Order: sequence, then structure tokens, then C-alpha cells
Amino acid sequence: MKLNIAVLPGDGIGPEVTNQAIKALKAIASEFNHNFKFTTADVGAVAIDKHNNALPDATLDLCKNTDAILFGAIGDPKYDNNPAAKVRPEQGLLKLRKELGLYANIRPVKAYTSLLEKSPLKKHIIQGTDISIYRELTGGIYFGEKQLSEDGNEASDLCRYSREEIERIAHLAFVAAEHRNHKVTLVDKANVLETSRLWRAVVKEVAQQYPEVTLDFLFVDNAAMQMILNPKQFDVILTENMFGDIISDEASVIGGSIGLLASASVGDKYAMFEPIHGSYPQAADKGIANPIASILSAAMLLSHFDLHNEAELIRLAVEKSLKLNITTPDINSVVNTVTTSNVGDFIEDFI
Amino acid sequence: MKLNIAVLPGDGIGPEVTNQAIKALKAIASEFNHNFKFTTADVGAVAIDKHNNALPDATLDLCKNTDAILFGAIGDPKYDNNPAAKVRPEQGLLKLRKELGLYANIRPVKAYTSLLEKSPLKKHIIQGTDISIYRELTGGIYFGEKQLSEDGNEASDLCRYSREEIERIAHLAFVAAEHRNHKVTLVDKANVLETSRLWRAVVKEVAQQYPEVTLDFLFVDNAAMQMILNPKQFDVILTENMFGDIISDEASVIGGSIGLLASASVGDKYAMFEPIHGSYPQAADKGIANPIASILSAAMLLSHFDLHNEAELIRLAVEKSLKLNITTPDINSVVNTVTTSNVGDFIEDFI
Ligand SMILES: CC(C)[C@H](C(=O)O)[C@@H](O)C(=O)O
Ligand SMILES: CC(C)[C@H](C(=O)O)[C@@H](O)C(=O)O
Repeated sequence: MKLNIAVLPGDGIGPEVTNQAIKALKAIASEFNHNFKFTTADVGAVAIDKHNNALPDATLDLCKNTDAILFGAIGDPKYDNNPAAKVRPEQGLLKLRKELGLYANIRPVKAYTSLLEKSPLKKHIIQGTDISIYRELTGGIYFGEKQLSEDGNEASDLCRYSREEIERIAHLAFVAAEHRNHKVTLVDKANVLETSRLWRAVVKEVAQQYPEVTLDFLFVDNAAMQMILNPKQFDVILTENMFGDIISDEASVIGGSIGLLASASVGDKYAMFEPIHGSYPQAADKGIANPIASILSAAMLLSHFDLHNEAELIRLAVEKSLKLNITTPDINSVVNTVTTSNVGDFIEDFI
Repeated sequence: MKLNIAVLPGDGIGPEVTNQAIKALKAIASEFNHNFKFTTADVGAVAIDKHNNALPDATLDLCKNTDAILFGAIGDPKYDNNPAAKVRPEQGLLKLRKELGLYANIRPVKAYTSLLEKSPLKKHIIQGTDISIYRELTGGIYFGEKQLSEDGNEASDLCRYSREEIERIAHLAFVAAEHRNHKVTLVDKANVLETSRLWRAVVKEVAQQYPEVTLDFLFVDNAAMQMILNPKQFDVILTENMFGDIISDEASVIGGSIGLLASASVGDKYAMFEPIHGSYPQAADKGIANPIASILSAAMLLSHFDLHNEAELIRLAVEKSLKLNITTPDINSVVNTVTTSNVGDFIEDFI
């Protein structure tokens, strides 16, 4: 198969972890005789520094003319504590999601057997956890109108959802559940929010087309608790943008490190693959960043094009590296000299 | 001291747990020669059923003419899945908070030594945790304008904050930190939300008046993760309404049961005390509801009126009950016959 892949490494640890994912994809290409072409472009703080734009036109054009996007991470603390900053790295990511119509962010959460001890949670709580989170990604409070009064004393953000925005991701979640454990849990705050009540109404309707899937409801506060008390109760979680952001980062503790969690952001035309961790600038260029989330994002990319054996081989390589303790310090309490690229090399070799 | 206390038991397990808190307060009154007068009123689903109003005027009047309010819990599933319901139990609670100006919800989170084993988290993670969460309670997306389009296909909720709303709770949080470990962590989503950027700007200004307190910032997604990875890093957490709802319910897993967490909701004129758990209708009238959160809310009530020895005695009684396993099934894996009122009786006797 021939695939043009846009690579957007971004900020902080983005470039180094993305490099390992590329190594894995190249190994797959040579092993399975595929033709993957990689083209790199700027996004985030580096793009602001170079072009004064978190998402330069050239980057967006490239993304619109490739088969898939491999994304690193963005964000730089120099923008976080400056409420007056006019351009922000995050705008690049948000604009990309919106422009490409990537409305569904899919985040698998698994407890790896070899990492059960690493989690802050007790083994019996997490063992066997296998969740797929479907987070709406181009609507809600992230994209509603924002206002700051002229005197700077009042601010607002609008959370808005339409039936259509809810329906399209709901269908993806139910189809996924049909291939999994036949359960969808809608996380919302329907006892307070009008948008959540719309979500509940629409998702209930969609559910009728999937009679083999059970639909459950959970208020987001309760969900944040249940995720820790009993994560095994979940199969597919469906939720809006902001709640999905919070719940999926929280869920990362199950695996013991956020450095393991991959995600796919898909729409009707484009697809982007990125680790859920951020740019983690304190760790940049030290060789300590965990590349597994990025490598597993590459596996999701392969699955997206129905290259299931290829994806499986990457996952196998990752599991092997975990088993052999060829892992970065965040999850490795035995050997503390394994670097980001050591992990990438091992996975490349294994493939 | 003479105190008039309004009692709003509400729905589900609300009445039974509140009864135990009253028993504890009566024991305190007789032990310390105080004069506590209790007056009960309807709120929530019971109030809707009786008066077609989740917060009848008589209840609100009573609250405005007492020294403090002891609140149970509200909510009934028959309203949750009915997006068309015109009256909702939660409206009673939200209106009460708004009308009484209870802008700060204070939620202490502690890992009790005798319950370390009960938490889904590993002992070394939670041991020594002592957090005080300051959640803004009368602003944000809870109270902003809500809209549903006429055709029912679009909904919105507005999140709005003013400088003044942020300042007043920020001061409370910093004062609290001065008496604790001198650290405030502001939880927000300043990389996306305009309201969060206002929070950051205002809280930074307020911080300058408290030079002995360190101010930290954490994005809410990261905070949801850090709460589980390393809860001991927190002292005072300051956050807006919705994030506070999620983060504090999540934090309840540290103690092993949400049935332990009390809260105080305070404003400039009034103060209300309530467990953070909900009405848990499935458990109602079975004698299995944990009354400790409600009893500890009564202790917060006493502290509020500077009755510190009295509050301390209640806390001591609670710790004793935990140590002796005189606890309801949610946290008791040894004896499974201890009922809600058994716990209340023990604490009453101890006092
Ligand atoms: C960087 C930030 C804007 C982003 C988000 O909140 O969506 C990130 O946290 C994520 O989850 O991908
Ligand atoms: C019942 C509900 C409206 C309420 C809230 O979200 O504030 C509850 O969850 C709480 O935290 O007190």
C-alpha cells in the first residue's frame, strides 16, 4: 500500500517521540512491502516562533493532501501563564481538528499485564481493563464563542452542540461497541446542562438502531469516580469534548503512565494520530520521553487503513518491550538507562 | 451557644444520613451546654412531589432565617432520563446555593489511616494526603444562560465569570492556605477557555497579597491525572464550579468511599453543610448508607461557629468508629451487619 503521511512533530518531546513512531512505520513498510512517504511540517509553539502562526497555511495544505497525519505534541509554558498572549500553540491543534473535521477522538485504555505493578491503582482494580473512549473533538465549549469584556473584568465561553454533531460520533461509538463488549456509557451532566440533555436525547435515539448494544448513563462527576473505583465496568465511553479531555487523561493512570496512551482523531475525510500526552517541555531532549504512545498511535494509523497484521506487529513489539523492561524511566523501576530512542530501536528491530 | 439549624433532608438516603448528623449535634449540645434548635423543610424530588417545586418558598424563607443549614442529598432517577422534565430536583439545590450566595464550596479530602486498605489506590500513594478543595459554587456554566432551539436540535450553556466572583473565593482559598501548607493550586483550562484565562489573571493578582503562599497552575486534564498519581502534592485546590464538581468527586476515591466526604458551602451571609455524595436512591431505607459524610458535615458546621472542641470531638468519634469497624458495608469488609443508625448511635454514645 502507498501512503502519504504528514508528520507534525510540534513542541517539547513531540519530535523525539514522533521519530520513534516513524522508525516503526518504516520498519513495517520494509517488512510488508508498503510505500510510506513522510513529509514534515511545523505546528504549535515552534510554528509561532518561526512563522508567527500556530498552524501555518503550508502545514494545513499538506495535511489536506495526505492520507494521514502523525502528530507529536504541542504547548509551551511561556504561553500558558500569559493571559494576554494573542497566539497560542494550542490554537494550532484546535484549528487543525476543526479544519479537517476530526470530530471523533478515540482513546483506547488498557491495563498491560507487565505493567500492573506500575499503576497507582491496586492490581485487582485494573486487571482486565479494556476501554475505548469516544470523545467529541470539534464542538462544545472548545469551539463556542469566547468573550472578554473590554475592561477585562468578565469572560465567557459558550458550550454549544447540535443534534448532527452528536449523532455522527454516537454512531461511531455504537459500531465500535458492536465489535467489543456491547456496552456504551454516555458521560454527561444532564442534571445541570442543556447540552447534556440534548446529548442524552439524541444518543438514546441513535441507540435504537443498535439493539445489541446496552446504553448506560453516568454523570461526569460520578464517572470520574467510577473510573478509579471500578474501571472494568466500562466498554465504550461516549462523551463531549471537555468531559472527554478530563476523563481520558484521568484514565491514563490505569496503565501506569500517560506515556502509553495513543489516540486517533477521525472525521469523514481525514485522520490524525497522536499520543494523548502533552509536550512535556521539562523532559525535552533528555532521552527520557516515553515513545510508546506515539508508536501505538502509528499502530492505530495502520489499523485505520485496515493494515491489521501490521498494527498487530507493532503492538506485539510494544508488549515485548514492556515485558523485557526496555522502557523509559516513567514505567521502568529496574533499569534507568533506557532512552527514548533505545525503545524505538528495539521496536524497529523486533519488527 | 444558641443556634437555629434548618434541616433539609431531601431525597434517597438524604433523610437517614441527616438523622445521624442530628443525633451527633444533639449529643454535642447536651455535652457542651449549647442550645441547638432544628427545623425541617422539604427540598428536591420530595418537594416536587409534594409542592411541584424543588425549592418551595417556605424552605427558602426558613433558610434565610436560620444560622446554618444541614443538607442531605437530592436527586431521583425518574427525572434524570427525562430531558423534557420541566422541574428537576437539582434545581432546588442550585437555586438554594444561588439565593443564599453560597459561592464557596469547601471539600476536605483526607486519607484515614484505618481506611488505607479500602482505597482502590495503593497505600504509599495516598498515605498522608490532606487536601482542601475550594470550588466556586454560584457561577460558571451551572448558572449561565441555557438555550434549546425550538426544533430541539441545538442546545447551549454559557460559562461566564466575573473578576469579583473569582476574587472572593480566591481570598478564602489563600487564607486557608496560610493556615495549612502554604500552597494553592489553581485548576483551570487556560490553554482553551477565556474564563480560565480570567481566573489565572485574577488569581495571580490576589496571590500577591499572600506572599507566604505559593501559587501553582494545573490544567484540569492534568489535575485529574495528578490527583491519582500523586495526591500528596496538593494542599489547597482552587477551581471553578464544573471542574470542582468533577475533581472533588474523583478525589473521594482517596478515602476509599464517597460516603466519607463532607462539605461546607459558604457565602457572606449564610452557610450550608452537606455530604458530597448524592441521594443514592438504590440504597435508600436499607440501612446501608454511610452517615459519616453527613456527620462530618455537622462537624464543619460547628467549626464554622468556632466551636472547635466540639467539632474535634465529632471527628474523634468518627475516627474511633473507623478504627473499631463500626462502619457501613461500603467501607467495612469485616462486619457486614452495621447499619446507618448503628454508626450514628455509636458516635452519639461516644460523644
Ligand atoms: C492541548 C489541548 C488543547 C488538548 C485538548 O484539551 O484537547 C489536549 O489536552 C488533548 O487532550 O489533546
Ligand atoms: C446534584 C448536582 C447538581 C450537584 C452539582 O453538580 O453541583 C452535585 O453533584 C454536587 O457536587 O453537589
